[in-house]
Amino acid sequence: MRIGICAPSTPFTRDDAARVITLAAHSHPEAELVFDDQCFIENGHFAGTDEQRLEAIVRLANDPAFDAIWFVRGGYGACRIAEEAVRQLKAPARSKTYLGYSDQGNLLAALYKAGIGWPVHGPMPTDIRRDGGDGAVKRSLDWLVKGDAKSLESNIESGRSYVAFNLMTLAMLVGTPLMPDLKGHVLMVEEVSEYLYAFDRAFFHVGEHLKDAGLAGLRLGRVSDVPENDRPFGETAEEIAKRWCARFKIPFLGEADIGHDIENKVVPFGAIG
Amino acid sequence: MRIGICAPSTPFTRDDAARVITLAAHSHPEAELVFDDQCFIENGHFAGTDEQRLEAIVRLANDPAFDAIWFVRGGYGACRIAEEAVRQLKAPARSKTYLGYSDQGNLLAALYKAGIGWPVHGPMPTDIRRDGGDGAVKRSLDWLVKGDAKSLESNIESGRSYVAFNLMTLAMLVGTPLMPDLKGHVLMVEEVSEYLYAFDRAFFHVGEHLKDAGLAGLRLGRVSDVPENDRPFGETAEEIAKRWCARFKIPFLGEADIGHDIENKVVPFGAIG
Repeated sequence: MRIGICAPSTPFTRDDAARVITLAAHSHPEAELVFDDQCFIENGHFAGTDEQRLEAIVRLANDPAFDAIWFVRGGYGACRIAEEAVRQLKAPARSKTYLGYSDQGNLLAALYKAGIGWPVHGPMPTDIRRDGGDGAVKRSLDWLVKGDAKSLESNIESGRSYVAFNLMTLAMLVGTPLMPDLKGHVLMVEEVSEYLYAFDRAFFHVGEHLKDAGLAGLRLGRVSDVPENDRPFGETAEEIAKRWCARFKIPFLGEADIGHDIENKVVPFGAIG
Repeated sequence: MRIGICAPSTPFTRDDAARVITLAAHSHPEAELVFDDQCFIENGHFAGTDEQRLEAIVRLANDPAFDAIWFVRGGYGACRIAEEAVRQLKAPARSKTYLGYSDQGNLLAALYKAGIGWPVHGPMPTDIRRDGGDGAVKRSLDWLVKGDAKSLESNIESGRSYVAFNLMTLAMLVGTPLMPDLKGHVLMVEEVSEYLYAFDRAFFHVGEHLKDAGLAGLRLGRVSDVPENDRPFGETAEEIAKRWCARFKIPFLGEADIGHDIENKVVPFGAIG
C-alpha cells in the first residue's frame, strides 16, 4: 500500500518525516510512505505558494500509484486551494482515502461534497511531535493499512453517518462552496487554542447555519489549550455546546473522542459497513 | 438631548462611567448621559445574563425619553441577544441613533436589516480607557449631539451607502438572520488582536459570503495588535485584503480611517445627505 503525503497548509520538516517513516517501517512494513517534497517548502506561513500546494495534492490524488492521501499537518491554508483542487481531480482520485484533521477539514469537506474518495478525520504525521504521539500516528496507519476498527471513534455505529471538524474550521466553511450537505449526519466537533468566548461565538455561527440542516445530532470532542481570559467565561465548553444545541434544536448526543491530542480517534465521513 | 447607555456584551465600571460623564459635562453640556445600571452587572464574561442584557437594550430603545442609544463597549455577547432585541423594538426605537463598534456590529447589523433607527459605527464610552481616548469619546458625542461632519470617516461621500464592521464580527454575522443586504454599499472593515492567518481566513469566509452581494467596494481600516506568530505570514494586511478582493471581484477602494484606536472615525450606516 502506497500512501502519498502532502501539505495543503503549512510545512513539515525532513527530520520529522524521517521519524514517521522509521516508525511506520517497524509498525506497518506493508505500507510505503511517500512524503512529497512539497511538504518541506516554506513560503511565509505556508508550505509553498497556493499554486505549489494545489499542484501537489492534485498530482498525488490523481496518481493511480497511491492508495491513500495523508495530509501532513494543519495550521491554515487549505481553504485557499480546496475548491480548485477538487475541480482538478480525475478518476484515480475517486478510489482513495484522504486522512487529516484541523485545517484539513476544508479538504475533507470539499471532497465529501463532491463525492470523491473517502474523507477521514484522524491523526496526521505531525502528531509524532506530541509526547506519546507515536500511538496517534499508528492509529491512522492502522486505519489506512488494515481498516482496523480499533482506530474508530467509539461512538460510531454502523449504518449511521458522521462527520468531524474543528469548530473554527467549520465556522469558516459554512455557507461557502466547500460545505457539504450534512442531512442525517452526526456532527462531531473539537476545538483548540480558542478563548471560550470565541468558542461560544463559533457555535452561534455554526448553529445558525446548520439549524435547518437536518443534523442527527452533535457530539463534542475535546476543547483544549483554552487561553486564560481576563475573567472566567462562566460556563464550561460542554455547557456552551448544550445551550446552543438546545437553542437550535440540534440533539446533543454527548462526548466525542476527538481532539488536538494523542487520543484523537478516527472518524470516517459518511457511514461505515 | 438624552443618551441612553447600555451594555449588550461585557460590563463597564462606575468609575469609568463617571469619567465619561465628567468629560461630557464639559464638552457637551447640552447632552445628558444616562448609564443604565445594567452596564455594571457582572456575570462571568458578560454584563449580566442574556435576559438582563436584552431587557436593558429593549427598555432603553423603546423609551421615548432617549434620543440615542450608545453601546458602552464591545467584547462579545451581542450576537446572543440581537435578533430577539430587534423583534421587541417598538415605535420609539425607530427614531434613534444607535452607536458602537466591534462586537456591537451585531446590533448595528440587525437594526440595519430591520430598518430600525440609524446604526452608526464609531467610538464608545470604553474608549476613554485608551491614552488620548477623550478625543474618541468626544468625536462620537459631536456626532450624536451636533451631527458634526468632522466626526465622519473622511472617505464618506454623500449619496453613497456605507457600512463598517470588525472583520471577525462580520465573519460570524454572514449567513445568519442578523445579516443585512449590502447591495451597493461600500464595506469598511477593521481588525484587532488576530493573527494574520486568522485575518486571511476571515477574509476567505466573508468574501465567499459577499462575493455576489453587489458590494460597491471594500475599504480596509486599521489591523492592529496583531499577535506575533511562530513565523511571518508573508503578506501585509493590505496585501491580504487586495488579494481576496481581486479573487472575489470586489473593488478594493483603499484605506478606511477606522480601527480599535483613538482615531476611529464615525461611519453612519447607509447614505448621508
